[in-house]
Amino acid sequence: LGGTANAASGKSTRLVRGFRFAGVKAGIKKKEGFDLGLIVARAPAAAAAVFTQNRVAAAPVLVSKKHLKKSKGFIRGVVVNSGNANACTGKKGLDDARQMTEVAAEALGAKPQELLVSSTGVIGHRLPMEMVEPGIRAAVKRLAPSRFEDFAKAILTTDRSMKIAWRSQLLGCTKGAGMIAPNMATTLTFVVTDAPFSPKELDRALRQACDDTYNAITVDGDTSTNDMILLMSSGAGPAMDKKRFTRELTALLDRLALKLMREGEGVHHVVTLRVIGASSTSDAKRVAKTIANSPLVKTAIAGQDPNWGRVLAAAGRSGVDLDPARLELKIGDVLVAKQGSALASRSWEKKAHQVMSRPAYELVLDLRQGRKEAHVRFCDLSHEYVSINADYRS
Amino acid sequence: LGGTANAASGKSTRLVRGFRFAGVKAGIKKKEGFDLGLIVARAPAAAAAVFTQNRVAAAPVLVSKKHLKKSKGFIRGVVVNSGNANACTGKKGLDDARQMTEVAAEALGAKPQELLVSSTGVIGHRLPMEMVEPGIRAAVKRLAPSRFEDFAKAILTTDRSMKIAWRSQLLGCTKGAGMIAPNMATTLTFVVTDAPFSPKELDRALRQACDDTYNAITVDGDTSTNDMILLMSSGAGPAMDKKRFTRELTALLDRLALKLMREGEGVHHVVTLRVIGASSTSDAKRVAKTIANSPLVKTAIAGQDPNWGRVLAAAGRSGVDLDPARLELKIGDVLVAKQGSALASRSWEKKAHQVMSRPAYELVLDLRQGRKEAHVRFCDLSHEYVSINADYRS
Repeated sequence: LGGTANAASGKSTRLVRGFRFAGVKAGIKKKEGFDLGLIVARAPAAAAAVFTQNRVAAAPVLVSKKHLKKSKGFIRGVVVNSGNANACTGKKGLDDARQMTEVAAEALGAKPQELLVSSTGVIGHRLPMEMVEPGIRAAVKRLAPSRFEDFAKAILTTDRSMKIAWRSQLLGCTKGAGMIAPNMATTLTFVVTDAPFSPKELDRALRQACDDTYNAITVDGDTSTNDMILLMSSGAGPAMDKKRFTRELTALLDRLALKLMREGEGVHHVVTLRVIGASSTSDAKRVAKTIANSPLVKTAIAGQDPNWGRVLAAAGRSGVDLDPARLELKIGDVLVAKQGSALASRSWEKKAHQVMSRPAYELVLDLRQGRKEAHVRFCDLSHEYVSINADYRS
Repeated sequence: LGGTANAASGKSTRLVRGFRFAGVKAGIKKKEGFDLGLIVARAPAAAAAVFTQNRVAAAPVLVSKKHLKKSKGFIRGVVVNSGNANACTGKKGLDDARQMTEVAAEALGAKPQELLVSSTGVIGHRLPMEMVEPGIRAAVKRLAPSRFEDFAKAILTTDRSMKIAWRSQLLGCTKGAGMIAPNMATTLTFVVTDAPFSPKELDRALRQACDDTYNAITVDGDTSTNDMILLMSSGAGPAMDKKRFTRELTALLDRLALKLMREGEGVHHVVTLRVIGASSTSDAKRVAKTIANSPLVKTAIAGQDPNWGRVLAAAGRSGVDLDPARLELKIGDVLVAKQGSALASRSWEKKAHQVMSRPAYELVLDLRQGRKEAHVRFCDLSHEYVSINADYRS
């Protein structure tokens, strides 16, 4: 049982008991659409979260971390706004983030520390609290078990569409299109479950599930100031085996992460890069990350150009002690370089170009010096990426 | 005395005695124009060089390193081709690079180890030796003291124009437009002098001069497989004070590096970023490099958008232990962020946008935690960069 959909609606919300959702238009975003969302549990819900590792963490990240600790991992819900990240806003920004939890707590009859808060959008601007506060009160009035989609819409910024996925007893949504790099949570993601687990159990499952999913994707190497993945359990459903739960959660996050990549800013090709034959996992990760963030590799992918020399050159500057004469590269199932150099025959070129015209494909770089490996999902660097980010605020 | 010019011609070549130059069309490049160049000293010249630190170093880099050592720093010249990097070409590529020095040596009556070799262009393709060899012989016949410009043209690839600069007793040229990052030599650069110095003295001066010039620029963070800066002294001119020589050489490389940046692929804005108030120079460098290679910062610069939050966010993910609440940022002389957050007044926004519309300007980020600093020159990430690199081979 499971799926992903742009219209998960009724079907999806029946899966997870004990939660209500809302999304409203508070007027924070310049564009049309919902920009304030709420998830509320009927009773205090066990929760776990991972946050950005950026030192310039946004005010809502700092407040949420504190509240999660203060409430000992049992929270009533989360209030989220899009259109403004409340990052680089100093002490006043912290006051605003706290105020958001206070307004929500008051309207819900809960304690402020039982509410987390999350924001996404432009950095360095104060939140328009005169819109945010009435928005929160309006959202509380709209809360209903059937409105998960409204919530999923309210967290979007430059995203092309809503991103929802579900598995047995699990329902999740995600947002994010740029400023995405494999260093902790990456983007805003919210997952609810009714399988009963303690905060500690949720935390363990979440960290394990993130490792190969959200921690292994990159759009542009820029880790956001606001990243957060929140997992809440109402405990209102049947018990589930811990291992199975981690598997289901990993599958859910994998789907959401893939949706995120497919809808990344200006993305036309999602490439899964596997670096194999490394001496250590950290070596493999370092090589993979350097290649995945190389502008020259990313533009070659945009141009569907099997310019494999750029991949080897990026590996060479990763800082990992590799032997260039051993490197072997495959594009899809087409071998394009062996012993660090070109193949004699040129028949690979057309085949590799065909693979690269697909919306999703695999690159495999074999370092041939050990048995460790790592993977990362990345994408092309296109004209649209430049357009979106050069015009973001105008 | 000194200058930079697109037409340095007669004036420049009178400055440095003891060298002859040539550039010819061998047919290696698809495009029109010279693609094979030679610099030859009348007698063995003292030489020093810095090379790429990329582990996937190209065949000519490996051969040149070996020859410089074997000849104990006294060489007759260098043979350079554009249009093909002879990188990732395995053992056969090494044979080709060696063969280039042998053909040149034979035509000049020198030993192969007295010749260095340098290549630039596409990676992963064998050199068309059937064009390269006659090209070298033709270049030897064209050698003349007045043909420095022909040489400077022969080393270009996607460069918009020839890049030459001179100072007292020094003459230099450079090439490069993409795959440029601050990690050793960066791009191909050749400097000749007639001031008499030993290879050791040249080496010391060159490394010192590179530190604040070629090692502090980045177009796209991609360190090339072929980078090389070569400095040769004929000793045919008057003696010069060592310190003065290093100063002149630094000024020369600074000019060449700036020309390189201005003509970088798709570059419209050259930004000098100074990170000050750091606890250590390495911290300052790390923060500067992370900002300079951030796609979000670079697209904001393309859009002339004073979206300073992206600068602070990039600093935050640099791995340096900084205090976000202390950060202070200036765009030109306009203060745009203080204590890690927005200024109350919005009058800075228009002023900062005006600064950002200039072809060159300064960003100053003050970490306010110490007295160390570093600078890096970088540029915008534009549509042209994507076009050039997505279509490079087609």
